[in-house]
Order: sequence, then C-alpha cells, then structure tokens
Amino acid sequence: MSADHFADRLADAVERKGAPFCVGLDPDPALMPAGVGVAEFCRGIVDAIAEQTVAVKPQSAFFEAQGSTGWAALAEVCEYARSAGLLVVVDAKRGDVPSTDRAYAAAFAPLADALTVNPYLGFDSLEPFFAHEGLGVLAILKTSNPGSADIQDLPLADGRPLWQHIAGLLDRWGEDLVGASGLSRLGAVVGATHPGVLETVRSLMPRAVFLLPGVGAQGGKPEDLAAAFAPGPASALVSASRSVIYASSGADWQEAAAAEAARLADELRAVAVPG
Amino acid sequence: MSADHFADRLADAVERKGAPFCVGLDPDPALMPAGVGVAEFCRGIVDAIAEQTVAVKPQSAFFEAQGSTGWAALAEVCEYARSAGLLVVVDAKRGDVPSTDRAYAAAFAPLADALTVNPYLGFDSLEPFFAHEGLGVLAILKTSNPGSADIQDLPLADGRPLWQHIAGLLDRWGEDLVGASGLSRLGAVVGATHPGVLETVRSLMPRAVFLLPGVGAQGGKPEDLAAAFAPGPASALVSASRSVIYASSGADWQEAAAAEAARLADELRAVAVPG
Repeated sequence: MSADHFADRLADAVERKGAPFCVGLDPDPALMPAGVGVAEFCRGIVDAIAEQTVAVKPQSAFFEAQGSTGWAALAEVCEYARSAGLLVVVDAKRGDVPSTDRAYAAAFAPLADALTVNPYLGFDSLEPFFAHEGLGVLAILKTSNPGSADIQDLPLADGRPLWQHIAGLLDRWGEDLVGASGLSRLGAVVGATHPGVLETVRSLMPRAVFLLPGVGAQGGKPEDLAAAFAPGPASALVSASRSVIYASSGADWQEAAAAEAARLADELRAVAVPG
Repeated sequence: MSADHFADRLADAVERKGAPFCVGLDPDPALMPAGVGVAEFCRGIVDAIAEQTVAVKPQSAFFEAQGSTGWAALAEVCEYARSAGLLVVVDAKRGDVPSTDRAYAAAFAPLADALTVNPYLGFDSLEPFFAHEGLGVLAILKTSNPGSADIQDLPLADGRPLWQHIAGLLDRWGEDLVGASGLSRLGAVVGATHPGVLETVRSLMPRAVFLLPGVGAQGGKPEDLAAAFAPGPASALVSASRSVIYASSGADWQEAAAAEAARLADELRAVAVPG
C-alpha cells in the first residue's frame, strides 16, 4: 500500500478500525452548544468520534459562512483531525475551468486527503486535482437531495439516466489512478438516501471509492448500503453529519456524539465487513 | 426599476455607462506585479477599470488559494468595488444540498450582487440562493473549457444536448424572479468561446441575464456575441480576466489594464448597444 494514495490510506484505516465510517463536520452556530466556537466545537467532535471513525468530512460551506475566521478554523480543524489519525475529506464540491481549478486544488490539497468535486465541467476540469499526488477526488454523481432527479436522472439517448453515463465516464477517467489496494483515487459521491441505485453504480464503477453521505438526519440507513461494499470493506465511506454532531446541544454534546457514532459504526461494521 | 433586483441594477448600470462589460479578478501571485499583495492588486485593478466597466467578477478560487487572508481580501475587494459603484459577481460556482446551500448563500450574499452556481443538483439546490432578495444567481450552462463537451453536450432522449434541456429548466425556474427590467435574476453562464450556441440559448432563455466569460485570453471575441443581446444591452454581461488584469506585469500594470479594458468596452459597446 502506498501511504501517498487516498484509497490505500483508507484501506489501511478501515483495516485498523473496522468500520468505513466518517462524520461530517457542519458547524452551524444555530445548532451548536451555546458558547462554543466553531473550531472548538469541531475539535470536540473529533475528540469524541476519533476511535469510531476513519475520517471526518468538514463541509466547507459552514466554515465559509463564518468569513475569514471560519476559513482559518477549517484549516485548523483539518490539521487537528489528521493529528488525531483521521483522514480528512473536505466537502467543497468545487469544479471550474482548468486554470481556476488549479487554484482550488492549491487551496485544498494541503488540508485534505480527499476533496469532493462537481464533474459537470468535464475531464479537463478534474485534471488539476488529479495532479496532486495521492489526493482523493470524489465526484458527485447522484446526490441525496430530492432535486437530484431534475438533472441527474434525465434520460440520455440510450435510455439510461445521465448519472449512469457519468458513472461510466468516471470509471474510465479513474483507470490510471488505481492504487495498490485496487481502488482508484477518483471516486464518486452517491447519496445514502438512494440505496436502490447502489448495485448499478457499483457495477459501473467497480474500482471506485464511494462516499455515501446522508445517513441519519437525511434518512439513509447503513443496512441498505451493502451493495456498495462488493469490492471490499474500504470501497465505500459512509458519512453521517447532523445526527451525530447535534445528538445533543446540552452539556453532554461530546458524549452524545460519541454514542451515536459508536452506534452507527457498529451498524456499518455488520454491513461492510464480511464475517 | 428596483434597486434590490440584480437584473434591474445591471440595466441601470449599463444605461449609465454604455457597455455591459465586466472584468474578472483572478489574483495569481505568479502573474501579479512583484511586491503587490492580493488585495492591493485587486483594488488597483478596480481603480483602473471602474470607468469602463459595470461589474467585477472576483474568482473565489484565487482568494481561497491564499487561505484565510485571501478570504479576508475577497470581502475587502468586494466592498471596495461596490464603493466604486461597480456590481460584484462572485464567481464561486457553488452548488450542494439545500441545507448546505443555505450556508453558502449566507457566506456570499453579503458580499455579492450576483453569484455563479452549478445547477447539477437541481431546483431545490438553487432555492436557498433565490431566498436572498434581489441576489443574482447565474447558473453555469455551457462552459468555456474544451472539456465542457464531455457532459454538457451529451444528447438526451429527444436528441438535444443536455445544456439545452437545462436552459429550458432554468428559464422555467426563473419565471418568478423577473424584475422591472423584464429580465430574471436567475441567469446563465455561457462561455464566450462558444458563440455558435448563443442564438439557441437566447431562444431558450429569452428573459435571462447571461454571463459570458472567456473573452481575451481564452479566445472569445466581442464581435461574435451579438445574439446574446437580443433582449437589450443589459441582457448579457461580457467578462474578460487575464487579458485585462495581466496586460502588463511592469510598473504600468494599472495603465495597461485600463487601456485593454477601454479597448474591449468599446468593441462591446458596438455589439451590444443599438445605433
């Protein structure tokens, strides 16, 4: 395994910890415990969930909403999580023309083990992210929101929905990015709210790491996600955000987050890890 | 005209200044004059081009690449440009699930008159931006990069390329967002490198403000963009970035930017303004 390849690092972490589970960091002052700052809250969540998870997924939007201090908090929290032995997936869904994406890649590659991107601008818009050695690049494919049907499900000339065609493109584009684990560092984001599509998307992308957000508050359930794990326990990373980090807004917020993370990690272990 | 509606503000600015021209602020330390900081550089460009333009388009990526100081510079530059009487279009191409987009909208609405977004996640992902009164929402449709063909041009079941279908969706989604000028504050971004599509996209989106980036360094030419302006001179905003802001890296960088902006604004006036 190469320590420099996202999929290999993920495989190693799942082997050590047992569950391909990730907690999303969406720090919203309206929901956070009173008197706790954004960076302090996120560090507290990292402390609470580090044993149960292999990764955290800071959602860039919630840090950006706090302006430049939020941006500084994002960098601080990413470093803190990595020091705690966690992988960091920055959920930023960036995507622009190549000259601009080189700037986005320069912004996020130092902070993150992997970054979510939007593939709508095509292959050349993803290349600047591939150029950062080992960086995981997770392209949104079929998202967890109801509106995902508006465009992602449009039928193409061959009758298949758009997202299936994009899955095929991503599989091809990720061929040269396969690590020692057999998995590519070009992966896909599929909402855990759409378990019915996982078998199809796995058949179209047999070498991809999937990020499956939307467990918990958005309604996704670990037991429905087994099809994603066909290539192995580290071939998908399941993420819950609000149900874990806001499990309590009282003084027991860390204990409550730890308990909910442990519960979901156990459920997921039963699904992802054979035997 | 409502002072609170992006399209109305744009119409007013074009009437006063004559050319629907916008300069993109892509501050790249590798290309900027030596010894000039990001905020200082952008303020200097604003000073140089304020008379020739109606708007600036800060590209969020180049500020993010500078970390939290870059984010502070973005806010400072937006405020500076608005004080100079310019509209601000923040080019950030955001797009996520609704709960996340509420945070992005909170981050950018205080800085910007309009924001670029990515429509791949569907209608409910755009609603949080619409909720900010008057905010312009410019959805990428057919982008200026060569890779735009990979997904945007895919033929749907009815034979038309995907971007044409999305244009129809955007037209419908923007119906309730039309201002006194007759133009909607849900607009579309179409690369000026694809002049051949402008007649079609205009027929599909007769009420939309178009943002047309890619003039100059990327190869787009003002004289090819006339079809975009069928509804009037403020129905499209043409943007040039590198060819203006990096017209010189010597001591005359402001004069050179002013001269190139004046040249492009003149060319554009001849195309956009009848008679």
